[in-house]
Amino acid sequence: MNTFILLFQCRDQKGIVARVSEFILKHQGNIITADQYSTDPDAGYFVMRVEFNAEQASKATLDIDFVPVAKQFGADWHIYDKAETLRMGILVSDQGHCLADILYLWGSGELKADIPFVLSNCSKHEKLVKQYNLPFYYLPADKDNRREEEILARAVKETDFLVLARYMLVFSGDFLRKYSKDIINIHHGFLPSFKGADPYGKALEEGVKVIGATAHFVNEKLDEGPIIAQEVESVSHKDNRDDLVRKGRNLEKKALANALFSYLDHRIIRHGNKTIVF
Amino acid sequence: MNTFILLFQCRDQKGIVARVSEFILKHQGNIITADQYSTDPDAGYFVMRVEFNAEQASKATLDIDFVPVAKQFGADWHIYDKAETLRMGILVSDQGHCLADILYLWGSGELKADIPFVLSNCSKHEKLVKQYNLPFYYLPADKDNRREEEILARAVKETDFLVLARYMLVFSGDFLRKYSKDIINIHHGFLPSFKGADPYGKALEEGVKVIGATAHFVNEKLDEGPIIAQEVESVSHKDNRDDLVRKGRNLEKKALANALFSYLDHRIIRHGNKTIVF
Amino acid sequence: MNTFILLFQCRDQKGIVARVSEFILKHQGNIITADQYSTDPDAGYFVMRVEFNAEQASKATLDIDFVPVAKQFGADWHIYDKAETLRMGILVSDQGHCLADILYLWGSGELKADIPFVLSNCSKHEKLVKQYNLPFYYLPADKDNRREEEILARAVKETDFLVLARYMLVFSGDFLRKYSKDIINIHHGFLPSFKGADPYGKALEEGVKVIGATAHFVNEKLDEGPIIAQEVESVSHKDNRDDLVRKGRNLEKKALANALFSYLDHRIIRHGNKTIVF
Amino acid sequence: MNTFILLFQCRDQKGIVARVSEFILKHQGNIITADQYSTDPDAGYFVMRVEFNAEQASKATLDIDFVPVAKQFGADWHIYDKAETLRMGILVSDQGHCLADILYLWGSGELKADIPFVLSNCSKHEKLVKQYNLPFYYLPADKDNRREEEILARAVKETDFLVLARYMLVFSGDFLRKYSKDIINIHHGFLPSFKGADPYGKALEEGVKVIGATAHFVNEKLDEGPIIAQEVESVSHKDNRDDLVRKGRNLEKKALANALFSYLDHRIIRHGNKTIVF
Repeated sequence: MNTFILLFQCRDQKGIVARVSEFILKHQGNIITADQYSTDPDAGYFVMRVEFNAEQASKATLDIDFVPVAKQFGADWHIYDKAETLRMGILVSDQGHCLADILYLWGSGELKADIPFVLSNCSKHEKLVKQYNLPFYYLPADKDNRREEEILARAVKETDFLVLARYMLVFSGDFLRKYSKDIINIHHGFLPSFKGADPYGKALEEGVKVIGATAHFVNEKLDEGPIIAQEVESVSHKDNRDDLVRKGRNLEKKALANALFSYLDHRIIRHGNKTIVF
Repeated sequence: MNTFILLFQCRDQKGIVARVSEFILKHQGNIITADQYSTDPDAGYFVMRVEFNAEQASKATLDIDFVPVAKQFGADWHIYDKAETLRMGILVSDQGHCLADILYLWGSGELKADIPFVLSNCSKHEKLVKQYNLPFYYLPADKDNRREEEILARAVKETDFLVLARYMLVFSGDFLRKYSKDIINIHHGFLPSFKGADPYGKALEEGVKVIGATAHFVNEKLDEGPIIAQEVESVSHKDNRDDLVRKGRNLEKKALANALFSYLDHRIIRHGNKTIVF
Repeated sequence: MNTFILLFQCRDQKGIVARVSEFILKHQGNIITADQYSTDPDAGYFVMRVEFNAEQASKATLDIDFVPVAKQFGADWHIYDKAETLRMGILVSDQGHCLADILYLWGSGELKADIPFVLSNCSKHEKLVKQYNLPFYYLPADKDNRREEEILARAVKETDFLVLARYMLVFSGDFLRKYSKDIINIHHGFLPSFKGADPYGKALEEGVKVIGATAHFVNEKLDEGPIIAQEVESVSHKDNRDDLVRKGRNLEKKALANALFSYLDHRIIRHGNKTIVF
Repeated sequence: MNTFILLFQCRDQKGIVARVSEFILKHQGNIITADQYSTDPDAGYFVMRVEFNAEQASKATLDIDFVPVAKQFGADWHIYDKAETLRMGILVSDQGHCLADILYLWGSGELKADIPFVLSNCSKHEKLVKQYNLPFYYLPADKDNRREEEILARAVKETDFLVLARYMLVFSGDFLRKYSKDIINIHHGFLPSFKGADPYGKALEEGVKVIGATAHFVNEKLDEGPIIAQEVESVSHKDNRDDLVRKGRNLEKKALANALFSYLDHRIIRHGNKTIVF
């Protein structure tokens, strides 16, 4: 079955859905699910995700034919072929719980992606990664030498996006510009609270009764990129630092996995510093 | 601003969205938000909610013009004018927490409905209801005399739907057929567990670690109508019966309020014994 | 049944529980529930709550007899007679949802407190308050004239603690010192994020996927007092400002009610800038 | 540091805490954390968990010295040495997500237990288990031949308790009696709803808006043993069977891990068909 996903955004105006659905119909497509949403009517911005079957169509043809439609509305858009999997490069430092979760979901067929490599500045994850027959690159980067060029050399060529599954080095603006594709990070705190280092320590100090974890796109400001998914859980005075870390790991795994499921299923539209997650 | 909501359901087939959006465009409408969803591709059932502005249109015209569209697809459908509020009759027995919550939300303008009356088999709620300048009818119905004809006399004429805000008498099939419109009930248990009387007692006996409340449409089987909303909360061995009841009241208020918000905003489609809540 | 609650805190040391339970036994008391908790063994701070029946005992006797026990350990402590209700003064500004919730819980007997008055800088709440036969004082305070002396005149004399049920004026340090008893505030944001004004606007701007509300003790720093209870709920791009406000109101009501239940049941110990909520 | 945990239950009566804490003091112990709880005063049942340091004490001495204390109150009790880890045998069938989660938590040092073996009627888990250098036994049991004697031969000798981490064969009453120690099962449904096979299919059919998973002790009635932990998550009409299964796996992992953390930390008291989880 040829299934395609259209992500589409533009200034709000009349006739968008009619024009797009007519386009799909012209290609003998059948809409499986569609969401359209117009931001605050005054702001006037329109976002749409349409998933449709079109047995006769190919992504190449659709891409060409859609150009005039998008032009009419001045839209940003992308058509994805559901059969094409994205290439997801994974970076990880000392903490391996998110990595283990992602690999298990991938190994069991739930997370549909290609994983060209796992790269780490800790060698200890090699055994786990090898078990899944995936390439593992040990690159002892640290604060003084982030070795960004070496990472870029692989990432630019081999990946469609990167996942920072508790990778603890911050990339430079230069790296982000050169890579230029999406990077998804998991932060072990409930953003916008507790940015930067040791969020659980800060949570403990503040005496919060709920902790959280946040999956977000990376931009040039530390822990300030568009939020994709957040998970939270209650804590009490009985939870010491170890308990927060343990509970937090569950939240991190869940928030990151949810973000990846949404991303790989093309459910996320970035708009300004926010996300629409259909 | 003339805003309309279309609810639409039919066997899945090509061209539905195109035809419907063309219809809206023809009436110079602008789609604010739309959700389309095709049930399991094999089952092949299509549901849709579209909210659109159409300054020149009236409900009367839309209703007439939409007939051929619906006919083409063999669809069940309804167009609502967002400016028209539904008439919501409220029935309540001894427990008044859901009533108080609904009335407060209504009084503060959040819950947009007309309330033709509150009817109760307990006189004690009169004071609260009168405070909101709403008609209160005391009708001492009980298991031996449900006084359904008297309730029907008012309900059929004065309401678009009924809310059982902890009304503890079960209506007969005869009542349901004669009333024939929607009835929304709040059950103080996590259905399908704990149907019928004393769900908190049963929850305590089973030693569950999570309790719940369920808002659902009423049908002829007790506590088995389509579920609209469910709320849950953790409990522990420290929670005695009173604690469960207290926590449960919060869940009941929230599940019922959520169900009413969805219903009044025309976000619910009933399909078989299930609901789609957009 | 004479039921008492002991709250007790001191530097950790051996024999505390033995000494305290011996004290209770000496008064022919029976422990109903007890929680002891030693903070991080290194930090070495001990907190305890004991609820016990003692049919022959009076608070006066217990208070005298406990002095040497407390002295031995250098403890802060308080014994409460469960039959004595605290006097809770309520302050509220424009938003009345927390007030309505508190009054309903009070009227239904769930919230066991005396309410000497509701004081507001908005006259509109009078009707609701009068319905419960409670004194209502309208005091048109604003940023330029907080009228703290007038509030103090009543509060010091008539209350054991104050609840700011969405009271939007910040009290001066002078007020806090003169009042010197506990003040519980509900903040409509997930502290420590979104302190100060318009937390929902800020949450919307940040694009968070979870919002929250926080009940906390008031101290001299705005929205930085010890946190008592936090409630959270998921939001999505579909939720506009009104939706956040509506969902937030539920969280505020629940967080504040939970904090009040804990406070009135003497379940809260303040320690530094944190709370232990048993 | 010699740390011990006392679990204690008996008919409620005066002086228990005094006697027990005196016992601890006599062994120069220091209470780290303690919870006492008297069930509904009328029912009159008392449960207690005390964690204490006692540098000079040994479990052997404490066991002997505590006998008269327990005798005085007619109590069931157990003293655990926190340094002694329990031996946890794991059984698993086709679905490996709970197994993978447990092994990861174990490998990272969070789950403090000895794992004498993983036994499965599916050979495919061997690779994962071997990665952790743990014994893996493949035993192709099925409904027609449960091979209980072979399982018993290992389990009785090598384990302190068993975990059914999605083991899909039901044990006979005879097995349970012969094994006679605790068995913890994870059920992929929100008990008491959806007992037995295919709970996600049933949940889908009922159109519930919240799904759950339940960790419980096994007894002779299928899925009716005392509940230890339950986890829940919202679902919508958009979630098909695969989505429920995927979301459910997270709930199962979390409920089972929480139950194991509680069990290994000696936080669970069984009383009748319920648990107290401190």
